[in-house]
Amino acid sequence: MGRTSDAKQKILAAARSLIEGRGYSALGVAEICKAAGVPKGSFYYFFESKESLALAVVDEHWAAQRRAWARVLESDAEPLERLRLLFEETEAGQRAVREGCGTVSGCLFGNLTLELSNQTEAVRARLQEIFDAQVDMVETVVREAGRRGDISVADTHVAARGVVAQLEGQVMFAKLYNDTARLSPLWDNCRAMLGARTV
Amino acid sequence: MGRTSDAKQKILAAARSLIEGRGYSALGVAEICKAAGVPKGSFYYFFESKESLALAVVDEHWAAQRRAWARVLESDAEPLERLRLLFEETEAGQRAVREGCGTVSGCLFGNLTLELSNQTEAVRARLQEIFDAQVDMVETVVREAGRRGDISVADTHVAARGVVAQLEGQVMFAKLYNDTARLSPLWDNCRAMLGARTV
Repeated sequence: MGRTSDAKQKILAAARSLIEGRGYSALGVAEICKAAGVPKGSFYYFFESKESLALAVVDEHWAAQRRAWARVLESDAEPLERLRLLFEETEAGQRAVREGCGTVSGCLFGNLTLELSNQTEAVRARLQEIFDAQVDMVETVVREAGRRGDISVADTHVAARGVVAQLEGQVMFAKLYNDTARLSPLWDNCRAMLGARTV
Repeated sequence: MGRTSDAKQKILAAARSLIEGRGYSALGVAEICKAAGVPKGSFYYFFESKESLALAVVDEHWAAQRRAWARVLESDAEPLERLRLLFEETEAGQRAVREGCGTVSGCLFGNLTLELSNQTEAVRARLQEIFDAQVDMVETVVREAGRRGDISVADTHVAARGVVAQLEGQVMFAKLYNDTARLSPLWDNCRAMLGARTV
């Protein structure tokens, strides 16, 4: 049992790392198993297909990221401060990866959206759920900030989508230019987009 | 000569369409030639490698898009109206593709950024140049709007990057949800981000 779940974790970790480095399409099951150091039989014991592995990688990553987002966005801090912290932690996370492996990896969900969304409907549906959940989490904070009169937006849902889109767009540029400093203006851009009261 | 450049154009068109549908990594030269209806020898007559084909596809697409952006952003209209038109045309362009093939294809440059930027330095460098040029074109308009007092931004370069990031992020969501209506809030979000004077 210990060994078995070890093998599954090894496959997931290897797949995550290979997908981040080279994308999903170009990967083969044999290569994933080689990187994970497990026999190919193990792969099909845990995963029906490469697509079901991709879903598992996405789910695992979102479970961790959702906890991190919830810790920040559902804290007792003032609403806008929570958003600021979300951007700060996003930048710190990308910086940590860059320091570890030399490369800004970007957002796994954004990467897979642009690589895969027109190819596998199962992955597309899962990514939609994840971004919907992100927008909901941000919208809750935006609504709270609005009730306090800290910001002024016409439509909190549209505003929350704009915040997540800005995040994804800037993370994409951080990846392209391999430069996490690209993420620094996130906070000012979002404050402006939300019509935040100047203090 | 006529036939020769025909073959090149056929290869470029087939590659563009295949890259938009399925990404670059999973494509093979044989498949591109088959879709283009040209012998494999033709491919290597025009292109050294798959990478040099990718660069040619990117260059051709940017040449067309740069003309379209210049027509709008360098027109005689008021600066903010030019930006509004840019978003309107972006949405119309994505809608036309969706009506033609049923799928929002997104931004070729954004797609390749997230699929490839950590894999081929030549493509990465070209995509950086293209996004730099887009930011420059937007910044020129932002600066002009600022001089007229139509908007209020602290740093025109950072603001222009924010506008292009918002565009890329929203186009990504239009692709993920296969819904060009996702692009409709672009104008309001960008006006807010630029601190546009309410008329």
